[in-house]
Amino acid sequence: MPLREALRFIREALRPEPLGKERVRLEEALGRVLAEDVVAPFDVPGFRRALMDGYAVRAADTFGASLEAPVELKLVGEVRIGEIASVRVGPGECVEIATGAMLPEGADAVVRVEGTAREGERVLVMEPVSPGQNVMETDADVRAGEVVLKAGTLLTPQRIGILSALGLEAVEVFTRPRVAVFSTGEELLRPGDALVPGKIYDINWATVTAAARLAGGEPFFMGVAPDELEELRAFLARGLEEADVVVATGASSVGAADLMREALSALGARVLVDGVRCKPGKPTIIALAGGKPIFCLPGKPTSALLTFMLFVEPVIARMAGLAGMARPVVEAILAKRVVPDTGRHNFVFVQLTKGPEGKLVAKPIFKDAAAITALGLAQGYVEVPEGTEFLPEGSRVRVTLLWPAWPVGRSDLVPEAHVN
Amino acid sequence: MPLREALRFIREALRPEPLGKERVRLEEALGRVLAEDVVAPFDVPGFRRALMDGYAVRAADTFGASLEAPVELKLVGEVRIGEIASVRVGPGECVEIATGAMLPEGADAVVRVEGTAREGERVLVMEPVSPGQNVMETDADVRAGEVVLKAGTLLTPQRIGILSALGLEAVEVFTRPRVAVFSTGEELLRPGDALVPGKIYDINWATVTAAARLAGGEPFFMGVAPDELEELRAFLARGLEEADVVVATGASSVGAADLMREALSALGARVLVDGVRCKPGKPTIIALAGGKPIFCLPGKPTSALLTFMLFVEPVIARMAGLAGMARPVVEAILAKRVVPDTGRHNFVFVQLTKGPEGKLVAKPIFKDAAAITALGLAQGYVEVPEGTEFLPEGSRVRVTLLWPAWPVGRSDLVPEAHVN
Repeated sequence: MPLREALRFIREALRPEPLGKERVRLEEALGRVLAEDVVAPFDVPGFRRALMDGYAVRAADTFGASLEAPVELKLVGEVRIGEIASVRVGPGECVEIATGAMLPEGADAVVRVEGTAREGERVLVMEPVSPGQNVMETDADVRAGEVVLKAGTLLTPQRIGILSALGLEAVEVFTRPRVAVFSTGEELLRPGDALVPGKIYDINWATVTAAARLAGGEPFFMGVAPDELEELRAFLARGLEEADVVVATGASSVGAADLMREALSALGARVLVDGVRCKPGKPTIIALAGGKPIFCLPGKPTSALLTFMLFVEPVIARMAGLAGMARPVVEAILAKRVVPDTGRHNFVFVQLTKGPEGKLVAKPIFKDAAAITALGLAQGYVEVPEGTEFLPEGSRVRVTLLWPAWPVGRSDLVPEAHVN
Repeated sequence: MPLREALRFIREALRPEPLGKERVRLEEALGRVLAEDVVAPFDVPGFRRALMDGYAVRAADTFGASLEAPVELKLVGEVRIGEIASVRVGPGECVEIATGAMLPEGADAVVRVEGTAREGERVLVMEPVSPGQNVMETDADVRAGEVVLKAGTLLTPQRIGILSALGLEAVEVFTRPRVAVFSTGEELLRPGDALVPGKIYDINWATVTAAARLAGGEPFFMGVAPDELEELRAFLARGLEEADVVVATGASSVGAADLMREALSALGARVLVDGVRCKPGKPTIIALAGGKPIFCLPGKPTSALLTFMLFVEPVIARMAGLAGMARPVVEAILAKRVVPDTGRHNFVFVQLTKGPEGKLVAKPIFKDAAAITALGLAQGYVEVPEGTEFLPEGSRVRVTLLWPAWPVGRSDLVPEAHVN
């Protein structure tokens, strides 16, 4: 199946949607996604508020005031910030007021302190103010009943501040999808296992669980499944029972993939995608069982990570209520000619360095995808669509970085980035 | 003090450095920073590994092999992946081998299965291989003793995968600096408090603790400190006792700032910065007590968030072992003329929209910085250096986004971003 079609299948056949809601305190809300519109329960600021240090006055009393002809008002009290204004301003009167304090009854404007002079209980006003001047109205900031933040909003520090302004201690957010991860491959050891000749430590459990967490999921690693039908079936079944998404890596060699297909079929899973015309990623299998998606990714670490990003990450992100994940895209000069595999959409991993004129240079990584050094060097990838004969050395390419990756909410601006 | 000087003071007088180390399991390592060089404890893969499905052979036996003149070898066994190769390949012999499996003794190359034909125990080799072909050497990926990841490396999914390849279950990372946060202002309520006329809910506790967490800190909120010398002193003292950094917001109005200065002096704190020639941020105070930094930021929400980003965030990030925090910088067209305050470095908050030709348009936000709607609308800021008369409508400006923000490790590439 062509890559584009596989990606459309994921959107249209899997239709990933948020799964549930939970209540979290604002302290724990960073990076979570609002599950409901947040409506202001009251006006903000909720009272008429002075925007300057000065004197609360009746504006009409100050009309015509100037340095040469100041207006004299009688000081009848003071309102400090945080206090209920108990004093009243009558004609010819004024009240000392602090920025942020409540405007007393009778007053409709504030003369800033710099525009006044004081002699005991007499205040000379040397500049006129118009009604409402230097005053924030009761509902000037937010009106009660107004939707302040919409469902689907990613909670950033700024937005958590807004929730706090509404007096909220906790909010409804989408739950994080549970992601069951297992590896397959008779050669794999788990960290902590003793090293045995012929075997290597598993890498994919670590990259996939970390990437799933980054995308808003709650991953857990189930272990390394032996290459046996019943074992594979049992791993898949337990994954489906305990999680919302199942991700297996490594069942891509010919025999192992056949076993995986059998195990999927034994579970009644419907295979949506069996093989994608991309490199890496050809042996990817995507299936659906009881409404839950199962992803079988190739076993080489860079291949597993890339196919996770392409196929799994957007599903997890959407289940978490996000619009997706974004990564920066940068322009670079290709350091070496790239000849892609024909008949497939190629992803070429590159290492980036600064060239002579400060321009970025993308050096293709020709190491075997199984090498952990390849995993270490890869800073991004260049896409070479099916049908491209080759990319000449020195050509300008667009590189999607593997890191940083950040969550994108429904209404977020995404500058110069690739969104999955 | 000019902005540039204040920023230099932070680097040179505070000299933020990582504070300690702790051991975390790989499952918990995402986003943490390595506190020590990671040295490979063994060679990777650790044995000679087949890179193709095929036959392990003595390369010399295949020299001259072709489709027309195949070389016949005797099949003497099989090595499967994960197994110890117990069979030996003698002259004229071969062993069936799977990708990733251990090369048996005697063999020095692998002929891919596509280059062979098999008849029972006879294998016809139709293409020659050179010694080492299709074989990954014992230490081809990583050599024992090699530094694989350096101290100061930010742990991404890829790098956690590399740690896993080395069989590590846990690694030493820098501890997260503890950040004590308190607010000041008689008008402030905490979420959960009953709403009282004249008072408003505190915003800064929420934005500052979330932003501190984002920068790699472990923040905790101490509460709202009353405007009294002894109380302020007690809040500061407790913050210094329980945390590595203390952040107070709101003590910026004339009287409150004086109290704060007195409280700092009562604690023997050395004031490094008292006022910065920037807007917002003028009343910022930065002090040092017992080697720990204290930041007193203005109280208006956007001002508090911006000064946190400018002054506090890089200190927390460096204490967490990071190089800093990065945010995207984008080009936009200014929608309205901006006349900055003279004699100060101005930060003008803007809202971004897509203009007619897809270009970004930056609309300055003229709302009062105290308004939560200003906080909600601000997507980024434009810097207007001291001495700039004005920025005309339609000019091209560089906008630093407030979000996303991502941590940067010492060796990380930072494309088109502002790093604090």
